[in-house]
This record gives sequence, structure tokens and C-alpha cells, in this order.
Amino acid sequence: MSQPGILTLTTDFGTDGPYVAAVKGVILGLAPGTQLIDVTHTVSPQNILEGAFVLAGIVDAFPKGTVHLVVIDPGVGTDRRLIAVALADQWFVLPDNGLISALVRTHMPTGIWEIANPSIYRAPVSSTFHGRDILAPAAAHLLLGRDPAELGPVRTKVVTIKSFEATRDESGFVGEVVFRDSFGNLITNIASECLGCTAQDAWTIQVADAEIHRLNQTYGESPPGTLIALPGSLGWIEVAIVNGDAARQLTAGPGTTVWVRKRRG
Amino acid sequence: MSQPGILTLTTDFGTDGPYVAAVKGVILGLAPGTQLIDVTHTVSPQNILEGAFVLAGIVDAFPKGTVHLVVIDPGVGTDRRLIAVALADQWFVLPDNGLISALVRTHMPTGIWEIANPSIYRAPVSSTFHGRDILAPAAAHLLLGRDPAELGPVRTKVVTIKSFEATRDESGFVGEVVFRDSFGNLITNIASECLGCTAQDAWTIQVADAEIHRLNQTYGESPPGTLIALPGSLGWIEVAIVNGDAARQLTAGPGTTVWVRKRRG
Amino acid sequence: MSQPGILTLTTDFGTDGPYVAAVKGVILGLAPGTQLIDVTHTVSPQNILEGAFVLAGIVDAFPKGTVHLVVIDPGVGTDRRLIAVALADQWFVLPDNGLISALVRTHMPTGIWEIANPSIYRAPVSSTFHGRDILAPAAAHLLLGRDPAELGPVRTKVVTIKSFEATRDESGFVGEVVFRDSFGNLITNIASECLGCTAQDAWTIQVADAEIHRLNQTYGESPPGTLIALPGSLGWIEVAIVNGDAARQLTAGPGTTVWVRKRRG
Repeated sequence: MSQPGILTLTTDFGTDGPYVAAVKGVILGLAPGTQLIDVTHTVSPQNILEGAFVLAGIVDAFPKGTVHLVVIDPGVGTDRRLIAVALADQWFVLPDNGLISALVRTHMPTGIWEIANPSIYRAPVSSTFHGRDILAPAAAHLLLGRDPAELGPVRTKVVTIKSFEATRDESGFVGEVVFRDSFGNLITNIASECLGCTAQDAWTIQVADAEIHRLNQTYGESPPGTLIALPGSLGWIEVAIVNGDAARQLTAGPGTTVWVRKRRG
Repeated sequence: MSQPGILTLTTDFGTDGPYVAAVKGVILGLAPGTQLIDVTHTVSPQNILEGAFVLAGIVDAFPKGTVHLVVIDPGVGTDRRLIAVALADQWFVLPDNGLISALVRTHMPTGIWEIANPSIYRAPVSSTFHGRDILAPAAAHLLLGRDPAELGPVRTKVVTIKSFEATRDESGFVGEVVFRDSFGNLITNIASECLGCTAQDAWTIQVADAEIHRLNQTYGESPPGTLIALPGSLGWIEVAIVNGDAARQLTAGPGTTVWVRKRRG
Repeated sequence: MSQPGILTLTTDFGTDGPYVAAVKGVILGLAPGTQLIDVTHTVSPQNILEGAFVLAGIVDAFPKGTVHLVVIDPGVGTDRRLIAVALADQWFVLPDNGLISALVRTHMPTGIWEIANPSIYRAPVSSTFHGRDILAPAAAHLLLGRDPAELGPVRTKVVTIKSFEATRDESGFVGEVVFRDSFGNLITNIASECLGCTAQDAWTIQVADAEIHRLNQTYGESPPGTLIALPGSLGWIEVAIVNGDAARQLTAGPGTTVWVRKRRG
């Protein structure tokens, strides 16, 4: 694995306080010159599903060797594991609580190590801020090109959460909205590839009492104000209103059920 | 043009999801080591006027060679053009939809190229995320010091929006609030220089039923709680309340009409 | 002092407009290659207490030589001083309005200089944006390893604000909430070390009509939904609800009084 020295950060810390910067300071002290990229710090508190969605949206954009530090950790201070996962020639350093679920759908991990070696930790380790005191030093260890085996023992499994996978039934797929973007577009957990190459007008998408009877390829092919569904830029089926706010108009958001049904010919 | 490798990003993507980071990952894969500066990602969705205001506020602060990537793109997927504009010894890479309007008031472009060469695009190009798939590779092309002519054909005009320009009438200027800052100060589209060197007490500023009968030079010259107008730090007339929140007290914000009238002597 | 070229920024500018980027552009023009770290730009407008809390939370995380630029400046345009303070082998460049109060509790400044030399300022100096026009050039001066004595005269005192210090009374300590984090945890201005090594169950914490009769060490040692108090990761007593939102449930936030009382044995 090459060593470009890029670290991304994805957390639910918010951007108001000193927490994110404290993590960055620790990284820079241990691995000077690391290029730090904020993915987002406003994942809904302790929302693993949303965190998993975000990670799946960036993996194909970053160069080999990038280290992704992810701190969404409702179990801090319990016996949940912290892990480092090699996947897509990149590193993911995170609690083993399902955050990796969407990534492992499409990318096979090539190595999993538990982070359990106190000699790499920041001292003293606080009981409530393992992002700064354990995960950041572990990420720095990998940024420096050191042996992941020094982090702790090899593991062969990761925790996955089922809700990241749409359910297939006889008429199509049932999933849910996992993210509302800044435009009010609703991104679902139904992968576009599930629908294969079937004709665009073969599908009915139902969400919050609204029905959409075809799949668009672009926003622009329908007039402003139209409710549409389309394969989105991150690989998931999205529901949108052209130049409008689908979330507001449908009163829908993360958790709203979405059905994609194949119509009978 | 020199090559310091600075890229700024201005978008309406919000900071919650993977979208901004995906753009950055593409840049870093193509132009490693680029220094990435977030301007803002919370421009009101598809608000070109606000985007134009933001760009005008940073151009004089950045060094020569900086590349500014701007993605506020209500027309994505339609036939609007994407362009690269050389201006003030810097580059602006953006949709040709008026975002450049405030900049071209004060700086003459020295070159305009359409971005229309698929060989530089990321593959495959999604139909809804040209920021990641077309504009980011174009920005990387310029960051690497490559020939802008490889992006596409030279253009001689850019789209401008009229609402960025205050209107002159017999008694002075009519404009509008274009931005509310974090303190509740109201920044207008009336350039301070329009008022020339006329005495400070020669002007009446009217906004949302309030009248202000002089121009301050500083906040501090009036007591806390006073409603004032002054030439702001970005070159526009601002309305403020000393140590207070003018937007809230006046129930005013972007779009509110502002008159600046010369008083009869 | 070494010269790693790290600059952190802490402001109340918000993240919506061009203001933060304008400061960064000035820094990069004067000190190319500086690594820029956003601490936060959403300190409540002109809230010096909150700014002081944030600075105290990052100082121990950053490497020697880091320059911290802090712009929370209700007195801009008045005769308040701007200063550069050497402390913990780092630099703090800020208005002398109490922002340094929490830091000087635990770290002795090793040098204080007033910033008063117009030859280092950006020209022209606006009357309302000294962060860009005076403080940023002063920070760049230090990033370049230049002599702090060129900034202006040595000072021997800094302004401190009393409200950063919890009050000791006969039964314990009276303080207040200074920060609500993204989880709704309430961080107080009562330093954990004040409580010394007394047994965990020797204390009663009272906040907003609720009483807590012991100090936790971790979140996990109490079941979800429990209201707890614990020594937090930044060195202050915190009040939290395990996997919940204490601020919402107690209707408490910055300014809420907190008592920590020693129980009679």
C-alpha cells in the first residue's frame, strides 16, 4: 500500500466545539504533514446507518493508501471492538459496530485488525474520547506506513447491520430513505444495480403515498416541479423533485419506506 | 500563471453527506498535494446571487494561480455550459450561469474556455454530479499547469445576472440585501465606491421601514444597539446594529430592498 | 520554537460566507504552504466564554510551534488590544478580551506582545475586519518564524474573565454550563481536578433541579437513559444522559448554574 498521507475524518462530533480539532492535532503531532480532509462531522448523533452511507459514497473517489478515520461510537466505554480494515487499497479505522456495512457489499476487505495495543495509545486514555486517544494514534500508525499487525490481533469478521440492504420480494424491492441531501433529495438504500437493465418504464417507485411510474436518467428530462426517481450519482435510487425539495413536499426523510416494484407487462 | 496548488471550493452541497469529500478525493487523485480550502458549502440551494457574492469576497485575498471550483448548478443535466475563466491571475471553474457576475464588475477576464472535452472527464460521467465528474477533473487539469485550451473551445462571453448590480436613479441607488452574516449584519449589492467621496452625512439609507441618516466608518463610533450603515469590509454597503442583530430586529434578509438616497443640501 | 507551519482558526464568523476563506487566502499569500486547520467558526456570536472553552480543549493536542488564530472580537474598531501570546510552546494570536482566560489557568504564558505595528498589516486596513487585515498577517509573521518583537511592544498582563473559574464555597463548587456538545452533553467550567481524589460517591451534582449522587468514570457503567455526571475528556465536569440528550431533557445549556457539593459523611 502506498503512502500519500491523506486522512479523512467522518464523525458525529458536530463542528461547534474543540473535539474535531483535538483529533487533528493528535494526528499532526504523530504524522506531521498528513493532509486532512473533513468528510462530515454532522452525521446524526450515533447514527451508524448514516455513517455507513457516507463511507460508501467516498471510497471510489479517494486514492490508494488513504486512511479514513470514522468516529460514530455509541458504544464508547463498553466492550465493542475498534478495528482497522484494509479495503479497496485504503484503510478504514473505526468502531466495529456496522459502519463498514455498506462498503463490504461491494468491496471485499483484504485485512482486518483489532486495535488493542495500548503501547500505541495516547496517554492517558480518557474513558469517553477514544477517537482522540485510541483511533487517532492508530490512524497515524497506518499513515506512517507501519505494520498493521502492531495494532492488535487479526480478525476475520466485521459487524454488519442488515438495514443497509434493501429487501427483495416477489414484486421488487423494499428499502428506506437513508439520507436527505441539501436539496431535499431522498437517497435510498436500494442499489441502482439491483434494477439491472430493465426498461426505465418497467418500474413503479412508491414513497410516502406518492407513486412514480418510471425511472429518469437526469433531472433535466422532466420539467421543474416534477417528482422523479432516478439512479443517483452515488449508486443508489434517489427520489427528487426537479429544482424542488422532495423531502419537504413528501414529508419524508431517513427511515421512510420506499418500494420499487416491477410492473406487470 | 504560477502553480501554487491551491484549490478553493464553493458549493451548495451542504456539509452533511459524502458529496464534498467525493469532489476532494477526485482532485487529490489527479493532482496530489493540492491544498484544499473550503470557502463554503452552505450557499442556499441553487442560489446563484449568493454564490456570486461569496466569490467577489475572496478574489482579492488569494494568491495568483489559485483555482476556484464553484458548483452551484441548477441546470445540471441541461445544456448550460461549464467554463474555466482566467481572471485576476486566478482560475474560476464553474457553470456559466451568472456565478461570475459580481467578479466581472471589477476584474476583466483574460480568458474563457468552455469545458467540453470528454477525454479529461472522470468515467463514467453521472448525469447529476458534474461537480465530481467534469468540473473537478477540469480544475485538476489547471492545477497541474496544463493548457486550458485542452479543456475546450475559447468563448468570448459569460452569462451575467442583472440583479447583482444596484440600480441608479435620480435620487441615488436601489439595491437589495444579498447576504446575512453570522452576526445578523445585512450586506447589500450596493458597492461602497458608488457613493464616492461625498460627505458621510449626505446619505439616507432606507431598509425595511427604517431610515439611517449617515454612514458610519466603524461599528465602535456608535453606541451598542444603534442601527447603522457603513461601507463594509468586502466593498459593499452594510446595515448593522452595533453588538446586535439587524436582520432579526428589522425582519430583513436576502431580497429585502435597500435605498441609498442623497439628501438635498 | 520550531516551525511546523500549522495554523488553526477559531472564529464566530459562521461558515456561510466568504469571511473565513478571506482570512485563509491572506495567510497563504504571506506564508505559503501553511497547513490550515479549522477548529470551529460557529462560536456563538461574540461569546468570549465559549471561545475560551474551545481553546482550552485543543492546546494539549497540537504540536509545538502551532499558531492559533482566534477572532471573536466584539470590540473591533474600539481601543481593545490585539495580542500574540506564547504559551505551551505554541502561539495564540487574538484580541485581548478574555479569550485566553481558560488557557492561563493551566499554562503560564512565556511571552506577550501587543500587535501594533502597521508595517505588518494588510493594506488598506478595514475598520471592521481586523481578523483578515491585522491578525492574519500577524499570524503569518509568526508562521514564518520571524521575531515577535516586530509585532509591537511586550506586555505583561492579559485580560481574563472571571466567569471561567468555578467559585468555591463551603460545601463545594458553583459553576455553570459553558458548552453543549452535539450529543446534548453539558460541559461545565468546573475543572475535574478541583474534586481531587475524593471518592466518587462523595459528591452531589445539582443542575436544573436534577440531582446526581455520584461521579461516573464512563458512560457505559450506567444503563442507557441514566442521568450521570463524570470527569469529561477535556478536563471539566460534564453532565450527560447515557445514549441520550441531557440538554434537551433538563432544558439546560450554556449559562445554567451547576453545583458540585461534597456530602457530609
